[in-house]
Amino acid sequence: MSNQKSPARRALDVIPHAKQTSYPEPFASLVRGREKRRLGDAFGLSNFGVNLTRLKPGAISSVRHNHSKQDEFVYILEGSPTLVTDAGPTELQPGMCAGFKAGSGDSHHLKNETAADVWYIEVGDRSAGDQASYPDDDLAVVVTDGVHVFTRKDGSSHE
Amino acid sequence: MSNQKSPARRALDVIPHAKQTSYPEPFASLVRGREKRRLGDAFGLSNFGVNLTRLKPGAISSVRHNHSKQDEFVYILEGSPTLVTDAGPTELQPGMCAGFKAGSGDSHHLKNETAADVWYIEVGDRSAGDQASYPDDDLAVVVTDGVHVFTRKDGSSHE
Repeated sequence: MSNQKSPARRALDVIPHAKQTSYPEPFASLVRGREKRRLGDAFGLSNFGVNLTRLKPGAISSVRHNHSKQDEFVYILEGSPTLVTDAGPTELQPGMCAGFKAGSGDSHHLKNETAADVWYIEVGDRSAGDQASYPDDDLAVVVTDGVHVFTRKDGSSHE
Repeated sequence: MSNQKSPARRALDVIPHAKQTSYPEPFASLVRGREKRRLGDAFGLSNFGVNLTRLKPGAISSVRHNHSKQDEFVYILEGSPTLVTDAGPTELQPGMCAGFKAGSGDSHHLKNETAADVWYIEVGDRSAGDQASYPDDDLAVVVTDGVHVFTRKDGSSHE
């Protein structure tokens, strides 16, 4: 990444991450309207990731999931995404935030069901040995050396 | 903390942290106009802290410092603080961000030299064994079980 030594930068000047997703279809299409600027990585940070994320109309943040070891947090900057947890849907507004404690078992994601873009800050740590679970979908993941390999829950490929 | 099970909340509804600072004088007075809402803690997150922080006119974010183990990140929501690093001062605007890599040795803080409030999101992880250093001031800190004890650099008290 260029500009690593710059003490500060405009978040919008950070180029969106080139790799859109590692999800197989049909999940990849659901996040096609998601754009992540990896702000923490732009400054060489490694203990946590912090992204400026845009969800275009119709996009979701991720397949609804929970983490075993890694905490997650979102702060809404613009737009009105729907947060879905085990408790159901909640409409969020700018200035609202949500935190997802590792190991809680409560799954979450954001959906942009509006006609306007949603922008938010997301934070996640990088605790080793994390496992993500997807209660609503036939999706499982193994992460090896930072590479996400997605399968069906029986271990077979979606192809 | 009440409302830990709420899936989301307005950040401004999180009550500012009661303890203003552990700094001794004359440093405590410099952060008197600083107000931190511990958003991550409000959801029970423990791997990192994320705060909504307000700097009233004249306030600083902290004594200028660097960390040995813990990364830090800020995203400016409102106002124009001055970021001071080893490279000197930089005026920030809303939508700008900065990251401070652990172990870089480059020290930082924010100063509100304007007549308007500054609001920003700050993130820091909780890696064990962290040490903070304060190059500009006669300040040293030892953290034991989460309690910060500040001294002069020779180990004596500021009292």
